[in-house]
Amino acid sequence: MQIIDELTTPALLVESAALEANLATMSAALPGARLRPHIKAHKCTALAARQRAAGHAGFTCATVREVEGMVAAGLGEDLMLANEVLDARRLGALVADGARVTLAVDSVRTVEAAVAGGLREVIIDVNVGLPRCGIAPDRAGALAGLARERGLAVRGVMGYEGHLMMVTPADEQTRLTEDAMKLLLAAHADVGGELVSAGGTGTYARNTWATEIQAGSYALMDTAYGSLGLPFQQALSVLGTVISVSEGWAVANVGLKSLGMDHGNPTVPDATVWFCSDEHITFAPDTPGSVRVGDRVRVLPAHVDPTVAMHEAMYLVDGLKVLERWAVDLRGW
Amino acid sequence: MQIIDELTTPALLVESAALEANLATMSAALPGARLRPHIKAHKCTALAARQRAAGHAGFTCATVREVEGMVAAGLGEDLMLANEVLDARRLGALVADGARVTLAVDSVRTVEAAVAGGLREVIIDVNVGLPRCGIAPDRAGALAGLARERGLAVRGVMGYEGHLMMVTPADEQTRLTEDAMKLLLAAHADVGGELVSAGGTGTYARNTWATEIQAGSYALMDTAYGSLGLPFQQALSVLGTVISVSEGWAVANVGLKSLGMDHGNPTVPDATVWFCSDEHITFAPDTPGSVRVGDRVRVLPAHVDPTVAMHEAMYLVDGLKVLERWAVDLRGW
Repeated sequence: MQIIDELTTPALLVESAALEANLATMSAALPGARLRPHIKAHKCTALAARQRAAGHAGFTCATVREVEGMVAAGLGEDLMLANEVLDARRLGALVADGARVTLAVDSVRTVEAAVAGGLREVIIDVNVGLPRCGIAPDRAGALAGLARERGLAVRGVMGYEGHLMMVTPADEQTRLTEDAMKLLLAAHADVGGELVSAGGTGTYARNTWATEIQAGSYALMDTAYGSLGLPFQQALSVLGTVISVSEGWAVANVGLKSLGMDHGNPTVPDATVWFCSDEHITFAPDTPGSVRVGDRVRVLPAHVDPTVAMHEAMYLVDGLKVLERWAVDLRGW
Repeated sequence: MQIIDELTTPALLVESAALEANLATMSAALPGARLRPHIKAHKCTALAARQRAAGHAGFTCATVREVEGMVAAGLGEDLMLANEVLDARRLGALVADGARVTLAVDSVRTVEAAVAGGLREVIIDVNVGLPRCGIAPDRAGALAGLARERGLAVRGVMGYEGHLMMVTPADEQTRLTEDAMKLLLAAHADVGGELVSAGGTGTYARNTWATEIQAGSYALMDTAYGSLGLPFQQALSVLGTVISVSEGWAVANVGLKSLGMDHGNPTVPDATVWFCSDEHITFAPDTPGSVRVGDRVRVLPAHVDPTVAMHEAMYLVDGLKVLERWAVDLRGW
């Protein structure tokens, strides 16, 4: 039995009980095919296998490498790459070998790329208000027609209301989500197909219009989503070692290269974070003198997805005990 | 001959002429042992070998893994780990095998860790104003005495004036750097040893008090340092593919997982960046209609160090031609 004090730091920790609770809570709310877990949030096939065991056979991916890794891990029953690509040949090779891969398309060029790459199934990506990918709702039907003319099966529509994930209060979020999903349903009426795929951890309980929800962060969580009062626990932390203590502050070896920083500073329990450097976090303990050189600290990331992507592995732990080492095996592109 | 259009994106590009110019400019300013290049900025032994060829035999590292990788690459003549560690055993193993590794210490505990790990040489890390690691200047001499009692050779002092890297105007930066270095020199008077190691790319030309400068970013550069008017060129970019174009904005496949975000958004030439998502950057081209699906764009990172650490490799390029693939082989801990 390894204990966390034996781990080289920084080390990504996943508290097993919190993870299991999060998986159970989500599977109860969105059982089976109602959830298509987004594996970009953890990039870990071992964790995806837990989600599969919880009843979710279909998965959402953000990169070609993620799709390849899921297929290699035997989790290629029904993968959706919810992102546009201009070179789909690696995906087509997976399809030719028997995997089911559905690719998002939002333009003539991306339909052509799907055909050229050897894909058989696509989904029309529709803009529902977030200024990112997605075709205008009133043009979705025409693109689906083109795709079918080119021999592709069109499974339906997807649209991500990412701009609404952090909206409060709940009734305002529900109202705005309904507005966004009306756009998606209008497109779906023109496109057809069995799928209306949308949503995320922030709207999983409000989005009752989509046939399936693409949530991912719920499994591990972060402090940004944690502020919303969702019924998911903070399972993820970055374990660091206190390497220096001065009058008024302490420093642990967790920094910009082990933490996603786009949502701002991470949190150190019982302390105020001053700033992060490449390999350091400087923080002021609430109780002066309470932190000593050599202590271990658990730093809570503000944003789960880019944090996980910086680590080679995550350690499933039960308090101080290390239960398993899971490779973060879906990194890169 | 591979061309950049054949690369899977996102891909880290290093413009060869800019890199060579940066290496030459720095080596002219700080020849030989006056520069101890900090390899945390690029995490690439192939690039470090270029710095070695430019005359710099000693290197600065930030992690144990960086030290191990440099030794494995035959670049272990004189490595300084400019950071505190509580478990120095992997470093001691390198020393036992013939590498020269000097470890920063700033407390009794870190001296004890150096002894326990089998290190032979240390440097006293002194706080010169940045609230991070480093012992108070007036206690440095006593710590050096303890280290020598424990059988360690003390090579001198180091102190990083990181809080002064972005200070303008130049004469103000020079004045503040002098104040910081007076603290370091006072500590050095008590500690002894041949090294006074300090500085970075932002102060390399002002810090005339240190015997050696630990600059790293100068080789590749980023937009933050680029704003200072230093004589180094932007060599680094992240190549992306435009995957979607809408009325008013375009999206490329370069996002939070391929860009260090702690210094804010990256720059897209001839465009305004709106925001980044995990695998996307949404930007508005200055000239509407000038960007098409399938175009390649070069995104300029705001902060070089964490950006490089997200990539498996960097591609040395000459315009559209790919000259070499260099592994980013010093990632992790």
